[in-house]
Amino acid sequence: MGRLYIALLHHPVLDREGRVITSAVTNADIHDIARSAKTYGVKRFFIVTPIADQADLVRAIIGHWTSGAGGALNPSRREALEALEVAGSLEEVLEAIAREESGPVRTVVTGARLGGSCVSHGQLREILENGNGPTLFIFGTGWGLAGEIIESSRYRLEPIYGTGTYNHLSVRSAVAITLDRVVGRKDSRVRK
Amino acid sequence: MGRLYIALLHHPVLDREGRVITSAVTNADIHDIARSAKTYGVKRFFIVTPIADQADLVRAIIGHWTSGAGGALNPSRREALEALEVAGSLEEVLEAIAREESGPVRTVVTGARLGGSCVSHGQLREILENGNGPTLFIFGTGWGLAGEIIESSRYRLEPIYGTGTYNHLSVRSAVAITLDRVVGRKDSRVRK
Repeated sequence: MGRLYIALLHHPVLDREGRVITSAVTNADIHDIARSAKTYGVKRFFIVTPIADQADLVRAIIGHWTSGAGGALNPSRREALEALEVAGSLEEVLEAIAREESGPVRTVVTGARLGGSCVSHGQLREILENGNGPTLFIFGTGWGLAGEIIESSRYRLEPIYGTGTYNHLSVRSAVAITLDRVVGRKDSRVRK
Repeated sequence: MGRLYIALLHHPVLDREGRVITSAVTNADIHDIARSAKTYGVKRFFIVTPIADQADLVRAIIGHWTSGAGGALNPSRREALEALEVAGSLEEVLEAIAREESGPVRTVVTGARLGGSCVSHGQLREILENGNGPTLFIFGTGWGLAGEIIESSRYRLEPIYGTGTYNHLSVRSAVAITLDRVVGRKDSRVRK
């Protein structure tokens, strides 16, 4: 399996009416997703926002927890936030990955309402296990990724369902479950 | 499988030095865990705090999103928060469950640092599939559940590991992954 990357997009995403907006960065997203990424061996987690003030805010949070007072107090949080980076757009993320990797980037969009030709979590696990190039998981905030992001991606991952039809997880929970299903230990669901 | 319940304890839990404390209720915990609970068919999610002001705060949040303005604006959040309840202690939670259920409650403690005789997620799935009484998952905030809670529980669930040794997930992510592993669809990890 090649290296894994995550991008959390704050633009272009949808609002509840389906309009393209830029959403605000959320502190809980930064910490929760950084910790899940570290748990599942993700190489880098990009927070994507085109708003300079928001990008500065994220950099200040990273600084506090990596080189600042927070890191000394809480080493496990420092470890998680060391893999965090800010980017202005998905293109910038792809350029950053291309600088470190030789092959093409396998892009995977996620979303609670994705339709069309989706791969299941099990199928994606197989694709990753049988390949060795880098993979970028793209998650949206607000009411999900804009159509242009979905259409430009190599794979669409099927929405997460639990036991029924309700699928309104937070993006933090969706990232955790997605990573566990696609790259988690295979035996975690069966008797050992 | 019998009905499922979740309790999120704010007391007695540990601080970073291992002292027993009462932690503050977090808004992201309420919403994220309520949405995960609804996704995986959990009957009720109890926020447990002995502090009356904190309990009132949670009730105000529930009111806003169920009967107030928030519920009209965001029906999926209303659906999730309708299963939320406040309790003053774990004993109160067990009493509330006993009023609705006939058999004994199967208690399951969780934690990133649990040792001793733990059941795996796969083993717990089997136990639940072969039984029909109610099951209560107990999650801690702060630096984890106090020893008295762990010792009084019927089962200890093994800590969640991803691909390495880092296991510092947020409790919100841990609840999501636990539910997906123990009660999620079996085929979500294998090719369909």
